[in-house]
This record gives sequence, C-alpha cells and structure tokens, in this order.
Amino acid sequence: MFITLKNDFLVTLTTDFGVSSPYVAAMKGSLLSIATRVHLVDLTHAISPQDVRQAAVVLADVTPFFPAGTLHVVVVDPGVGTRRRILYAEIGEQRYLAPDNGVLSYLTLSLAPQCLIEVAEAKYWRPGVSHTFHGRDIFAPVAAHLAAGVAPDQLGPVTNQMVCLDWPEPTLAADEVAAEVLFIDSFGNSITNLPIATLREWLGKSGIRIEVLGREIGELQTTYGQREPGELIALGDSQGRLEVAIVHGNAAKSLGIVPGTKVRILRRFSPSPHS
Amino acid sequence: MFITLKNDFLVTLTTDFGVSSPYVAAMKGSLLSIATRVHLVDLTHAISPQDVRQAAVVLADVTPFFPAGTLHVVVVDPGVGTRRRILYAEIGEQRYLAPDNGVLSYLTLSLAPQCLIEVAEAKYWRPGVSHTFHGRDIFAPVAAHLAAGVAPDQLGPVTNQMVCLDWPEPTLAADEVAAEVLFIDSFGNSITNLPIATLREWLGKSGIRIEVLGREIGELQTTYGQREPGELIALGDSQGRLEVAIVHGNAAKSLGIVPGTKVRILRRFSPSPHS
Amino acid sequence: MFITLKNDFLVTLTTDFGVSSPYVAAMKGSLLSIATRVHLVDLTHAISPQDVRQAAVVLADVTPFFPAGTLHVVVVDPGVGTRRRILYAEIGEQRYLAPDNGVLSYLTLSLAPQCLIEVAEAKYWRPGVSHTFHGRDIFAPVAAHLAAGVAPDQLGPVTNQMVCLDWPEPTLAADEVAAEVLFIDSFGNSITNLPIATLREWLGKSGIRIEVLGREIGELQTTYGQREPGELIALGDSQGRLEVAIVHGNAAKSLGIVPGTKVRILRRFSPSPHS
Repeated sequence: MFITLKNDFLVTLTTDFGVSSPYVAAMKGSLLSIATRVHLVDLTHAISPQDVRQAAVVLADVTPFFPAGTLHVVVVDPGVGTRRRILYAEIGEQRYLAPDNGVLSYLTLSLAPQCLIEVAEAKYWRPGVSHTFHGRDIFAPVAAHLAAGVAPDQLGPVTNQMVCLDWPEPTLAADEVAAEVLFIDSFGNSITNLPIATLREWLGKSGIRIEVLGREIGELQTTYGQREPGELIALGDSQGRLEVAIVHGNAAKSLGIVPGTKVRILRRFSPSPHS
Repeated sequence: MFITLKNDFLVTLTTDFGVSSPYVAAMKGSLLSIATRVHLVDLTHAISPQDVRQAAVVLADVTPFFPAGTLHVVVVDPGVGTRRRILYAEIGEQRYLAPDNGVLSYLTLSLAPQCLIEVAEAKYWRPGVSHTFHGRDIFAPVAAHLAAGVAPDQLGPVTNQMVCLDWPEPTLAADEVAAEVLFIDSFGNSITNLPIATLREWLGKSGIRIEVLGREIGELQTTYGQREPGELIALGDSQGRLEVAIVHGNAAKSLGIVPGTKVRILRRFSPSPHS
Repeated sequence: MFITLKNDFLVTLTTDFGVSSPYVAAMKGSLLSIATRVHLVDLTHAISPQDVRQAAVVLADVTPFFPAGTLHVVVVDPGVGTRRRILYAEIGEQRYLAPDNGVLSYLTLSLAPQCLIEVAEAKYWRPGVSHTFHGRDIFAPVAAHLAAGVAPDQLGPVTNQMVCLDWPEPTLAADEVAAEVLFIDSFGNSITNLPIATLREWLGKSGIRIEVLGREIGELQTTYGQREPGELIALGDSQGRLEVAIVHGNAAKSLGIVPGTKVRILRRFSPSPHS
C-alpha cells in the first residue's frame, strides 16, 4: 500500500528509545512507506526508559501547543509483547496513539477523552508483527493509515476503559502547603504538582517561605534574573507550576531532588522581636 | 544553482558527528541550498566515532523499512581527506551514498548491489572542497543533485569493486552454537549474529541453555514480560536475531558485554537421576 | 490565527534546551499552530546551558551554508524574563531572531547587519506570555508570522544598537603567533581563532612548530590520515581555522583544553649542529 496525501498531516513521536536511536528511524521509515507526505516532529525520545509517569507529564505539557488534530504517537511501552492494549484517543483538540498503561492519564485529569478506541484490527499493521518492536510494526503503520484517511473507528472497537495512574494532589493545610516534585527537566529544574495560582489563593501573594530537603529557598520569584548565579530560587514554570531551580545551575543534582521529593511552602510569620 | 523539486524526495542521514551536532545542520543547509524541498530524516548521528561496523549493521537493520528509492547518505568516514573512494550504490530497493570503507558490506551479505558508481565528478560538489568535511562539501551536494534529478551515471564511472569487511558467522557444532555480539543498542541490549530461526532449526524449540561471560540465562523467551525486572533474558530482537538483555536494565553495562563477546547456546541434557 | 503558506519556508532552531528536550517540541508546536507548512531544521539544541559565546561561533560557522533568506531562531537566553531586548536581524543572506545578548556578534565581526529591528509588537506573540519560556511564547510565534508573510518592520522599531561581545584576535609577533581556543566540537577537536591563511602568510608554509599546554604538536597537517591513531595533530578545520585534535581520540579531554586555552605557533629554527 502506498498512499499519497493531498495535505500535510502532522504526527509527533514520543519514545524512550534514546536520542537519535536508529529504532526511531525505523518507525519513521515504516510510517513514511505507507504515507509519504506526513510531517513528522520528534516530541522527545529522551523519556527515561520505561518511565510512563514522566512521559505522561511531558505529553500534557507539550501536546496542547500543537495544531488541533495533530496525532501524537507514544511508544513508552514496558508491556510490549504482553496482553496490554493499544489505544487511539481524542483528548481536547489533540489525538493520541499510545499503549494503555496510564501514559494518557495525566492528560485526562483535566479533560475527559471524547473518543477511545482499542487498536485491534491487524490489517492496518505490518505483516509479521515482531514481539519486541510494536513501534515499527503497529504504531507507525496505524498512524500512517490514520494520516491517509482511515477513520479511527476502523481500527477496532470503541472502549470506555483506560488504565489510570495515581497522581498525588498537593495538600493544603492551615499554614502550609505540601507539594511534590513531578519531574526534573533537562536543566535540573524540579517541577512540582502545585499550581502557583493555587498557592497564591491559599497563602497569599507574599509572606511565604519555601523548603526542600531541609534547604530554605525564601519567597517566590518571577524570573531567574531575580537571584544571583548559583542561588536557589523558586518560581513558576512555563506551565504555571511551582518550580525549584538553581540560577545557571542544576538544582536536582546539587540537592539530590528526585521525582516524589516533597516541597513545603509555609506561611512566614513576622520575625519575633527577639530574633 | 537552485532547483525546486516537483515532488518530495526522501533522504536519510547517518553520521558519527554526535547527536544534534551543528555539523549535521551544515550538511542539511548545504543540501537544502541546492534542493529546497528534500524531506530529510535523521537515521542516526549517534554512531560511535569512526565505528564503521556499527554503522554497517544499523544501515542493514533500518534502511529496508524506508520507502523504495529513498537515498541514505552515510558519513562515517575515518578516511576523510585520504584517497578512499565515495560510492553511490543501489542495494535492494534502497539507494546509498557512502565512503568505500566497508560500511555497505553488511547489507551486501544478503543482497548484491545492482548498481555501483564511483563518485568522482567534481561539478556536483561544493567549490573549494575542504580536507576535513566531505559531508558538507561532497556528500550533501551530490545527494541534492540526485534529488534534483541528476542521473546516477553522471556522478562518475561504474565500478565493480567495493571494500568488504569480515562478518563472522555463528558456528554450529553438534550440541552447541557459538554466536557473537554484533552491537549494543541504546538500552544495553546485546544483539548477536545468530538468527533465532537458525538456532531453532539446529537445536530445536526448547531444551537449550544460553551462556554469556560465564552467566547462565536459561531458555529462550519471546517477550520481556516473561522475566522479572532485573533478570537476565534471551529473546529474539526486532530483526529476529538472538539478543541478551536485562528486563528494565542494561545488560551490556551490568555484565561487561562488548561487540565481539561470545554467546554460547548449549543443548540442555535431562537432569541426571542423582541431581 | 491559522495561515497556510503557499511555499515552503525554512526555519532553523538553535537552543541550549538539551538534545530532544520536549521544550523544543513545544516551540515547534507553537510555531506550526500559526504557520503549518514551515520546514523546520534543528541547527543544534546542544549548546552548553547559557553559553552565548559557543552559540555565537556555531551560528557563524553553520548558517552561511543555508539557502538565502532562511530564518534562524536562537534561544540561548540567560536573560529571559529580564529587560533584555529581542532582535530581528538580516546579516549576509541570512535572517536571525535572537535575544540581544551578543549571540549575533561573532557573525557581525565580518558582516554588518543590513537590518536590525527590536521585536516589541505583542500582537505577534502568544497571549499570556510566560516569564520563563519566551522560546514558545515570543520567538516561535514571531517566526511563524514572518513565515506567514508579516513584514519585519511590523515587529517593532528599527534600532542601530546591538550587544557585542569581545572576540580576541590572534596576536602576531616576529617569530610567534598566539592563538586561543574558541570552542570544542563534539569529537573533542579544539578550534582556535587563527585562520590557517593568516598563519601561512605570517610564518610561511612550513618550518613551524605548534604547542598547546606545554605539548608539542609539530608541523601543520592537512588531513587526519597523516598521523597515526592516538597522535596529536594540528590542521585546518572545515572553516579554515587552526584546529588541535587527536586522531580517532578526544584532544580536549586528554589534554584538558578548554575555551580560552592558548595555542602557540613558533618558527622552527634549523636544528643546531650539537643536537
């Protein structure tokens, strides 16, 4: 089969194959062999191996910035070759093709899927699917057939079930908010699950102090430029979540922050007259 | 010269320049300056520096998945600036532009080249070719001219010679098969030169044990899910070759496996009555 | 807004976000949401974090090889969120969108900008610009609007000021030239600020010896093949500058070379009769 599309069709790829892995290229070749004119964008191939949670957060952060109707193919798939299902989903204005392992469940915290289909129709797969490389043999050809105009409901039956991971919420107490690091970005900035807006509503716009692993960070800032190079800083990330960073440095490595590390935000009382 | 193509033309790039090297971008700029509408796909830029054997295996694994007629440009070229030749080759349904250093010789183990041309006509190169960067000054402009419709036989004389490396075959003895690690993938999975099909024909479908560096792996499995995280496993890779891996781990690093490491597959005798 | 371009428009991206960072993909999504058919090329995302000088040299080396009119978007921007300006510049045949932090000042050593505009018109930005991610919220949408045909003078006022860094020149003494390492490439080759042409004019075509960190390298060579693997070598890089390398090795790591390391080139006197 070899279908030429009339219009460009945008497909992104997210994997844990490692940057510039030739396996990514094999997926691209497999896809382009069916739908030659697809516009491919690498979302990232640097997800830590089998880290479904990291992939879930990255998808929620980045995919909403793509044009409506973009298809996001996700191959972070520790269960490849087992009975885990593959899903086609429409969430917000975006479309996804992903293993049913919870990788779409951070997205669905705020948006219910409009459409969920179990990918089961083998006629859209490569003949002779391998046990270990569904990215090349199932995901890529299915994406190509979608690009070529196959209707999603031809891929398999509609389903109303999806694996959902547990995503901890920040806890709000009288004088304290407890947040948790969701993931570490490539600069070592540590992104938490706490929206700045929530923090400000709860504790006010100033008079707070932020602590991580016993280190005090002080007030919330708005830009890196408000602290000197090498200093710890807390500010909103590009998604509006609380982030802990070191100006021109790597906070995660320097402090030993990992996903799950707690970040405490406390009301700062006015200093006592004796101190 | 500035030729606009009517149709998309697919060119892949394989180099040892390192991931996201600006030298890769210089090659792309050089190519797109001549043929603006070429569709470029990075096959990989993470070949270990000067590792012609690794590049040879990667090309054979990945290029057959691309659409027929795709041009694969290979700049893994320790001999740049010496008298080594540059070849244009048609092998199977794919086309290649590569230094004549054996990098195409794993492909030609199973498929004879239909067409082999020595790239010698300097009018398709950049004026003032550097001694150290033929990727930008020869490979990229030649690829662009091919994309723009120049016939391959305009690039130089037909040749019937090509450098071929020695590729060891697995050895099949009465009760033992000796395989060898060809290369390590980005997960640390160690891919051998032994087709699973050959192994099964020779020693049967079960009753075998696999050993690497004195470690016993046991039976052949079909998916990673058949072992627990952290356990050694042997299974077929996406090309049907025997692969040694650690589930959710890095077998090469943990065991010290390198290309050339021997893997033994032995017939498992029924346990003696005393054991 | 959603503009479909009639023709391909080439945009390159240079950042310090790290290879395969999902933030790069967010920029691409933001750009493609406005101008769907832009042809995106990654120049590099492996600039060392906040290393404006490294980015400046890479831009000067690589961008001239792109088709005339290519737009190069540069997000190496330690001052993001402060009052630093953003510039649109036309230099040589290329176009640039970059923070005003000196990143264009290695290019302008040899070529004066023909056009310099301060990017100030917020109607071409994303609504609700974040403090920390101008790549996605300002640079990408502005690039997309340029691709879609917005005239550069609509972006903001013409300016005649630009931050310029200090770029040391090699010093030429009677029997000695003192050069300096500009940057280290991905092979560990150490590229200096000394054009080979200048060196030859000053000290002649042979009879020189080259020293770095107390190590003698000997004569200038023309290709890596003129030395054995593991040997130190000095030759011209792909831009015609003096480069210090180890054949099939990593000179910077082995010798401790960093940007700024001095390289001395001395006239070699004929050996004394006693030696």
